[in-house]
Amino acid sequence: MAKDHTSKDPTSEAPTKALALTSGEPAGIGPDIALAAWLRRKELDLPPFYLLGDRAFFAARAKILGVPVELADVTPEQACAAFAKALPVVATGETATARPGQPDDTSASAALASIRQAVDHVRTGRAGAVVTNPIAKSVLYRAGFRHPGHTEFLAELAADGGRAPQPVMMLWSPALAVVPVTIHLSLRDALKQLSTGLIVATAGIAAADLKARFGLAHPRLAVSGLNPHAGEDGSLGSEDIDVIAPAVEALRKDGIDARGPLPADTMFHAAARNSYDCAICMYHDQALIPVKTIAFEDAVNVTLGLPFIRTSPDHGTAFDIAGSGKANPSSLAAALRLAARMAATKPA
Amino acid sequence: MAKDHTSKDPTSEAPTKALALTSGEPAGIGPDIALAAWLRRKELDLPPFYLLGDRAFFAARAKILGVPVELADVTPEQACAAFAKALPVVATGETATARPGQPDDTSASAALASIRQAVDHVRTGRAGAVVTNPIAKSVLYRAGFRHPGHTEFLAELAADGGRAPQPVMMLWSPALAVVPVTIHLSLRDALKQLSTGLIVATAGIAAADLKARFGLAHPRLAVSGLNPHAGEDGSLGSEDIDVIAPAVEALRKDGIDARGPLPADTMFHAAARNSYDCAICMYHDQALIPVKTIAFEDAVNVTLGLPFIRTSPDHGTAFDIAGSGKANPSSLAAALRLAARMAATKPA
Repeated sequence: MAKDHTSKDPTSEAPTKALALTSGEPAGIGPDIALAAWLRRKELDLPPFYLLGDRAFFAARAKILGVPVELADVTPEQACAAFAKALPVVATGETATARPGQPDDTSASAALASIRQAVDHVRTGRAGAVVTNPIAKSVLYRAGFRHPGHTEFLAELAADGGRAPQPVMMLWSPALAVVPVTIHLSLRDALKQLSTGLIVATAGIAAADLKARFGLAHPRLAVSGLNPHAGEDGSLGSEDIDVIAPAVEALRKDGIDARGPLPADTMFHAAARNSYDCAICMYHDQALIPVKTIAFEDAVNVTLGLPFIRTSPDHGTAFDIAGSGKANPSSLAAALRLAARMAATKPA
Repeated sequence: MAKDHTSKDPTSEAPTKALALTSGEPAGIGPDIALAAWLRRKELDLPPFYLLGDRAFFAARAKILGVPVELADVTPEQACAAFAKALPVVATGETATARPGQPDDTSASAALASIRQAVDHVRTGRAGAVVTNPIAKSVLYRAGFRHPGHTEFLAELAADGGRAPQPVMMLWSPALAVVPVTIHLSLRDALKQLSTGLIVATAGIAAADLKARFGLAHPRLAVSGLNPHAGEDGSLGSEDIDVIAPAVEALRKDGIDARGPLPADTMFHAAARNSYDCAICMYHDQALIPVKTIAFEDAVNVTLGLPFIRTSPDHGTAFDIAGSGKANPSSLAAALRLAARMAATKPA
């Protein structure tokens, strides 16, 4: 898949809507990398985007960083035209005062307003996709935030008061795309929660979005085994036979091109990767070790299963380097490029 | 570490003893890749080695494969001189008749004699190291073999009737070396068996052999966490704090340069790898996914903790392609080169 999506694709067209980029935690590196990305927009081949927040706050951060960034207050509709000469900012009405590395009382309200309005813009057709900068969950929790994380909050915003969709995390890079079936659980809890139903539901959402968002008519899924050598015919654990193989069978009955369970150690080298579009993995490290080993700088976090496109850089707020100029915009740049590509892709 | 050992090293000297290469399962690809490696000895930059077995059997396999390999019956001491013009064979006294892909009654006795005599040669100073071709455990079990595997058999041969040493598996490649603390266990059983003592013992043997066999005066060990993000300060599982951190502390008290527990997903990219010589990993796939993802063709299995050097290619008997000419000698070639390099390295 990856190669199809980094080269020009006949199903793509020029973007007509800018991307909505949230500010993330104001005290984190989100503002830093947004400013750095806009400054290097040509070199990094970036699509037009706008930042949601408070122009004065971003101007102050630019001054701290010593970077000459022109900022323009715009509406989402004006962002594409403004992008060449200034970093477009859409005001959220929330003023942030947090200094780099030091979240304050304005942090949570500014971060949450930015996310809520970005989702509103994409759902009302004013933005092409949502790209989110990192938030600090601990800061939000202190302000009364009650969601397990960024992704679940987005799913609830997508629900419009109805049933929230099931979000699925994909880590995408030009070389490899992976979806972990269980994510932020201890390995012990991941073993408990892994089930045939969860694998089928997760892989089904991945397959649907690979069609709808990546334009792949027949996405090929490689499903990993859980145990060494995918259990060696049952001699190393029972889950590969009892839990994973039935999931693969159910997916195939649903018309999805799924293979597995495959031995996880031999499914990620270059020749193996070329035989599938996305690896469906059983737990966090099984999915993230290979993609971060080969694509550390340009892996993008993509949330599948939502009624809009959402990508994000694959790193946190990095409070220790916020405001220092050391933050690297590579992953944000990759997230912006991928979001634009997905927004321009016709469903297969 | 890796780079030091693929480039010329001032502690290395020309090998004076040939390497003892076992035949492995006669019906497998061991004979095929031994013949192919000798034919391509210049291109693959191979050190002198000799094959243990039955010359007539290897000649018959060469005929099946249609490869023009000259074979010479030699003693281990004659192998270096003979190597340039013929593939040296040291007779084990066992005659094999198994056809490619079809193990028979001669398979087990031929394979075991080859291993026993290779160990005898290296222990009596007649060979520089043991390099083993793959065996078929199921064939050996039918013949009464009672060891869990190749490695444990070698450890028992090394014991001389006394207490067998604790063998430790390392998977080595030019880019990354890893040691799994638990190996061929289901993930569930790996979680049960993982202990501070096992991590300390395994890493201690790895550190000792990195000094003795790889010539590293101060080997740097990177110890992985078990859970996502190494447990996020205890919020994702307790083992990182309760089991792994105390092991790292104990290793450091023993004067070993160990760091960890490190988040496993971010410890294997190129910049991270350059900061250590060997990764100590908690379970099979955590260790093998990264090394096979980046070095699928030239990963070498090295057994540490034995009183002699033992390497082997990182694949099995591949009965389905034995005798077909399709077997790739890359991993065997890497195993031979590494064994010669280790044999020529002065302990640090």
